[in-house]
Amino acid sequence: MARKQGIIDCDVHPYPTSIDEIKHYLEQPWKERYSGAGRGMYNNPVNNGRMDARTPSGGPSGSDPAYLRRHHLDVYGIQYAILMPRAFCNWLPDPDFATAIAAAYNQWLADKWLDNNNEDGVYKGSITIAHQDPLAAAKEIEKWAGHPHFVQVMTDSGSRVAFGQRQYYPIFEACQKYGLPFAIHPGTDSVGINDAPTVGYPTHFIEWFTLLSNSFASHLVSMLTEGVFERFPGLQVVLVEGGVSWLAPLMWRLDANYKALRYEVPWLKKLPSEYLRDHVRVTSQPLERPNNDAHLLNILDAMDAEHILMFASDYPHFDFDSPKYAFPKLPDALYQRIFYQNAKEFYHLE
Amino acid sequence: MARKQGIIDCDVHPYPTSIDEIKHYLEQPWKERYSGAGRGMYNNPVNNGRMDARTPSGGPSGSDPAYLRRHHLDVYGIQYAILMPRAFCNWLPDPDFATAIAAAYNQWLADKWLDNNNEDGVYKGSITIAHQDPLAAAKEIEKWAGHPHFVQVMTDSGSRVAFGQRQYYPIFEACQKYGLPFAIHPGTDSVGINDAPTVGYPTHFIEWFTLLSNSFASHLVSMLTEGVFERFPGLQVVLVEGGVSWLAPLMWRLDANYKALRYEVPWLKKLPSEYLRDHVRVTSQPLERPNNDAHLLNILDAMDAEHILMFASDYPHFDFDSPKYAFPKLPDALYQRIFYQNAKEFYHLE
Repeated sequence: MARKQGIIDCDVHPYPTSIDEIKHYLEQPWKERYSGAGRGMYNNPVNNGRMDARTPSGGPSGSDPAYLRRHHLDVYGIQYAILMPRAFCNWLPDPDFATAIAAAYNQWLADKWLDNNNEDGVYKGSITIAHQDPLAAAKEIEKWAGHPHFVQVMTDSGSRVAFGQRQYYPIFEACQKYGLPFAIHPGTDSVGINDAPTVGYPTHFIEWFTLLSNSFASHLVSMLTEGVFERFPGLQVVLVEGGVSWLAPLMWRLDANYKALRYEVPWLKKLPSEYLRDHVRVTSQPLERPNNDAHLLNILDAMDAEHILMFASDYPHFDFDSPKYAFPKLPDALYQRIFYQNAKEFYHLE
Repeated sequence: MARKQGIIDCDVHPYPTSIDEIKHYLEQPWKERYSGAGRGMYNNPVNNGRMDARTPSGGPSGSDPAYLRRHHLDVYGIQYAILMPRAFCNWLPDPDFATAIAAAYNQWLADKWLDNNNEDGVYKGSITIAHQDPLAAAKEIEKWAGHPHFVQVMTDSGSRVAFGQRQYYPIFEACQKYGLPFAIHPGTDSVGINDAPTVGYPTHFIEWFTLLSNSFASHLVSMLTEGVFERFPGLQVVLVEGGVSWLAPLMWRLDANYKALRYEVPWLKKLPSEYLRDHVRVTSQPLERPNNDAHLLNILDAMDAEHILMFASDYPHFDFDSPKYAFPKLPDALYQRIFYQNAKEFYHLE
């Protein structure tokens, strides 16, 4: 059944009902070793999932496609939900293990959320990759490219080096070849083999969680200054759940530095902010909400939210942004682009 | 000679004429080992100092108190210049060597810039510390406390862990005891023993230089969430040359996270942004300049620049901000606070 035009939610998290759903897709020795998708030493001290999102049968939040549809999509008139599974494979030192987990999550997502329980086509998927092994990641992308419901490639912002660096190019080459955006989502930052985007390691979850935006700033500046978008002119990138309001100030700073220092990066042919406009999109949750709405509306204007920003709810997480209440009152045309049009164009959705 | 009320410039860099000026104050074995204040692997590919600031006798930019007065202070009517020497001692693994360099710089600054060549009292100094050895740093602070022209303690943003962490408390205790603000200035980030505030290490100077603001975000969030200002209620902090416009978005994010996660940091008794208002100041250079002045004026309003922001030029560096041209046209009252009153109150200047 086709759904009428509504909202596109660019960050919805599907979870397995239990670890066995993922183990089912793992071969030995990984099946035996796999103990679930922990997030390591920075765990939310309060409940990370919305308690009211647990399924009627008592399953974890986000684990039932039919209930997620009733509890979230139908309530807000969401036409498409871009699913971002949380495989947390990017903190593991063993690239084969990480690649196996990514592959298991992709097969699980296809079987449970995309090829089944998806008659209305509302669920669109992300191909999880283990970026520790860029060549294996490129193969995994190739495996799923052409699937009607996988619309992007995703990875955690947690990594050892920033994504502008050269070892990642096989991933971008595959993304470009198959027209799949590269999505970066918080997770595994500062954990396992990954570097922290802070000075040393954070002490508390609130510090880690607040400074995840440092990861996104680091990846973005790295990709812009290394010339990734000159090398892969068809590459699209989306920054998911990394914050919103830091973007314009960072681009002011980077554009100014580019004017003074372009001698160092001669492969760039235009301002970093122009590459951003042409290649990068940002999702809205967690949207900052200053006491004064005018401050936010101004920063949305400064970042060209009309063309850059795409709505996301982060359902079913504790810091969920409601389509109704997350934003202050927006002009109709701006609302339409943020809640629908930008994502429709970016993901080529009908 | 007293100078009439003018501008207070919160970031002016005095340099030795040659390495020998510093060696003069070093004992063996440091005198022999010292080879100058390099900045390591992230060197500016263009000239870091203003060529026109070289002294009439051909000395390095910023190395002649009389010429700096003529070439910078007199031109703009600057009443006080807060001097920030660049000892670059914070990347060294040996804390004794680092402490010796800090001490040498302090004695040099006193002899060349504060106790001499300073009849009008225009030069105010910063006590350089080697934060690798917090107890030795506290002693160095104590040594200079009470000097009429040292007005703050300074250190590089480059460090191994963020400044909210407990090993630094002896430094803050000394700052509080002697009423000296703690100033953080970029430098030695990602170099030597120090961590990078990025995901892995940056590739180019432009990337490193742009993302120095990550260091400041990291130190600030660390100090705010660890409760440093509850433990040291008299402590004042100033963020120098770390950027300006990122502050309000970060505080929106941190305040929101505090509301959701305060369970984890029960020692905090008010919003992080309220601690900021009561304890932290920010200097203006390098001020971001978006194409649309209204975007900047809005973000200055959002960060309460009227009470938080203090003008700085960064003379004699390549990205110098002119008192005349750095800002768009400001309302008189706001101009007066940013260019004079905030710093006068913060440093208790007459």
